[in-house]
Amino acid sequence: MITRKLGATDIFTGDEIKKIHETTMDIMEENGIEIQSDKARKVFQKNGAIIKEKQVFIPREMVAEQIKLVPEKFTIHARNQQNNIVVGGQNTVLAPGYGAPFVMDYNNKRRRSNYEDYINFTKLSGHSKNIDIVGGVLVEPNDIEDKVRHAKMFEAAVKYADKCLMGSALGEKKARECIEMASIVFGGMDYIKEHPVLVTLINTNSPLQIDARMSEALMVYAEYKQPVVVASLSMTGTTAPATLAAALVQQNVEILAGIVLSQLINPGTPVIYGSASSVVDLKTGNLAIGTPETAKMFNGTAQIARFYNIPSRGGGSLTDSLFPDAQSGYQSMLNFMAAVRSGFNFILHAAGLLENYMTMSYEKFIIDDEICSLVTNFFQGLTVDEDHIAKDVILKVGSGGNFIAEEHTYNHMADLKEPIISTNQRYMSNNEQPDTASRANNYYQEVLKDYEPPELNEKIEKELKKYIQSLEK
Amino acid sequence: MITRKLGATDIFTGDEIKKIHETTMDIMEENGIEIQSDKARKVFQKNGAIIKEKQVFIPREMVAEQIKLVPEKFTIHARNQQNNIVVGGQNTVLAPGYGAPFVMDYNNKRRRSNYEDYINFTKLSGHSKNIDIVGGVLVEPNDIEDKVRHAKMFEAAVKYADKCLMGSALGEKKARECIEMASIVFGGMDYIKEHPVLVTLINTNSPLQIDARMSEALMVYAEYKQPVVVASLSMTGTTAPATLAAALVQQNVEILAGIVLSQLINPGTPVIYGSASSVVDLKTGNLAIGTPETAKMFNGTAQIARFYNIPSRGGGSLTDSLFPDAQSGYQSMLNFMAAVRSGFNFILHAAGLLENYMTMSYEKFIIDDEICSLVTNFFQGLTVDEDHIAKDVILKVGSGGNFIAEEHTYNHMADLKEPIISTNQRYMSNNEQPDTASRANNYYQEVLKDYEPPELNEKIEKELKKYIQSLEK
Repeated sequence: MITRKLGATDIFTGDEIKKIHETTMDIMEENGIEIQSDKARKVFQKNGAIIKEKQVFIPREMVAEQIKLVPEKFTIHARNQQNNIVVGGQNTVLAPGYGAPFVMDYNNKRRRSNYEDYINFTKLSGHSKNIDIVGGVLVEPNDIEDKVRHAKMFEAAVKYADKCLMGSALGEKKARECIEMASIVFGGMDYIKEHPVLVTLINTNSPLQIDARMSEALMVYAEYKQPVVVASLSMTGTTAPATLAAALVQQNVEILAGIVLSQLINPGTPVIYGSASSVVDLKTGNLAIGTPETAKMFNGTAQIARFYNIPSRGGGSLTDSLFPDAQSGYQSMLNFMAAVRSGFNFILHAAGLLENYMTMSYEKFIIDDEICSLVTNFFQGLTVDEDHIAKDVILKVGSGGNFIAEEHTYNHMADLKEPIISTNQRYMSNNEQPDTASRANNYYQEVLKDYEPPELNEKIEKELKKYIQSLEK
Repeated sequence: MITRKLGATDIFTGDEIKKIHETTMDIMEENGIEIQSDKARKVFQKNGAIIKEKQVFIPREMVAEQIKLVPEKFTIHARNQQNNIVVGGQNTVLAPGYGAPFVMDYNNKRRRSNYEDYINFTKLSGHSKNIDIVGGVLVEPNDIEDKVRHAKMFEAAVKYADKCLMGSALGEKKARECIEMASIVFGGMDYIKEHPVLVTLINTNSPLQIDARMSEALMVYAEYKQPVVVASLSMTGTTAPATLAAALVQQNVEILAGIVLSQLINPGTPVIYGSASSVVDLKTGNLAIGTPETAKMFNGTAQIARFYNIPSRGGGSLTDSLFPDAQSGYQSMLNFMAAVRSGFNFILHAAGLLENYMTMSYEKFIIDDEICSLVTNFFQGLTVDEDHIAKDVILKVGSGGNFIAEEHTYNHMADLKEPIISTNQRYMSNNEQPDTASRANNYYQEVLKDYEPPELNEKIEKELKKYIQSLEK
């Protein structure tokens, strides 16, 4: 978790953000949003929205009323209470890469990811001192059959780590099953209804749609007052207008519609205003995620969420590169720094992704994790007190002296180094230093070899196994 | 040149910065600063400073009075007036790597740099649309004899580019010779005295010294009202205290002492408050420049300069890595973004450096240059007007539509790509994409092959040659 001492980026003036808000409300009333779930549309209708076929027109007053109910800040509880996190305010919590169907490491070609990879990345996340959240589609376990995939992922997340958890959003049934599994881990439904323990990612379909599967999963999580990230992944020039301000307006309609639904179901349900929107290179049709346009979208998204006093999600260590090379380094740092600086409270994709959202890399995970440490340090700012300003020491050493033997130096000596990114050592002779990716490759293998999962209550483990077996039938 | 729409980072509260200021003034009066030039000490003495041997004690009133004379903003004139730059305000001007004694490219080992490298990097800087300044010790031409090295560098800077110029600070004689060469290029001393045309870099010796060579070069530049960057490169734990706030205080004494000297010589001389200070890894004694501590020093330095209303210099695309690999990418982006965001008006080392300040890399230059473009774009922020907010287009496309065929998309289509960092294309089949450094290697060779230097008046070229020949005798 990063706690920012430094301020967040405001990219818009007060007038600009009002204009974005008013245009959003106009579109909410004039075009509305297509909600593909009958159940969800009924909820909107019952509360005064106008429905024409699948289109839901939401009056601005209704939006204003509902988003006021969203908590500014909330705690997600982990099975190890020391790993609880607070979402909101100056905090930025970190989750690893999410949803990639491929995996690669330094020595292997890109291949389809499997359950072993899922477990490995859960262990690396468990080992990380930066990553706060595991579970969900950390990486796609392609070798697990669909009907139990969400459950097997949940099981691994609980077994190999004791951090906060994400759960499935793939329709009502799976959402409900995830909640039931969480109730096994956390000691019953009553506890869950009072404590956020499972956060899920609800994606809209741009432009201006939310599908049935997502709407209904959202409704389940809201029923149990579990946190939902409502996020848009719109792409300029294809599923969003080509200009960034317009893309922000359009995603604002989508995200707010989802948030309104959550509050209609259960007022005060914790939600996070989310975005993974980016620009498209129209020459190729590819996402161009390593661009400053993406970083500017982060700034805009986070400020709009602040305007509504809703915690926000976006960003990550994102790159278009296929390898953990220089391009990957520059782009990931640009996006990650911009994301934290934007004021996002929740960063998905904080470690491991290459090739926009397509591939999880073991080396990149290790590198990004270290970047999380550096950026955490950066946002802590500087301490200015007697001891740190050290007037006496400066006067004592004086002109032309040396500080190396001073007690003040000894007292403040710190190990600046983490092993991968932060090295300033010549490993061997000139030009023979192993490159960053190869150092990371050695490192992650050691971590996996040495990792000891946190203890899990035997009874819980058995019950969970039994529950999952019942789904397999 | 980057023009920031986004605000600068304030890392200190008002009280904190006052504390830093007052402690600086205490040290200025109690320890003073060792000025190793007799001439410079006399100037201080004549104006009311107290001198004891080489130590100069500067009363806080004198500091306050002199720094008020420094211009907040000034223009540096290039021989091509279209390349003039304004230093100050929301502007950040960019100069390439500076002072490296080594050079490397992708195919060669690190080796001592020579005059051919100097010319090559001048051409690459001339070609760049981001770099504003050439000349000075862009890279050390080790094969040129010392007594004309400054002159040959000046000649190459004028011959292969028409951008703003840096000049030598290696003592009074060479400083004067640089001014004389500038007067040949710019049409006489009278023009020069009215127009800043040559900026130089004056380094203090930490802790709390300025050597004779630097003091006297500074005095020559001030005599002709040419801009000087007064900069400290102190290293925590060795030549500065271990804590960052104290290191900032100590460098503040050094930098302000140099700035006071410049104003005593010639009130209103344009100066830039500079720093290349960083932290040391006390395990190895190496600079650890790719650390967040360095980036935080940038924040602090720039804010202190703003407190005095003096333009500031710091930062760059700095890394500890020996190669343009992932480490290099992450660290350079961290430092460069932090530097611009800090509000620095002048960034030396914006392109090319590896291994802290030791090695210029052809590939890194190309990569960093592209990063300059991306970061320039980022700091321009977003446009929010009718056209960019595009309400009609959003309403027209509606739920489930596609924006690709819209005229609005066509009108705003832009080529997002520059060739090296920004690619999102699979070059060949999976895993066969050439890495960033290898793409940059191909690219810089093409640039050098195709580069056509800007025209230079024949008479000026001849006169310059004659002048340099006279120095060789």
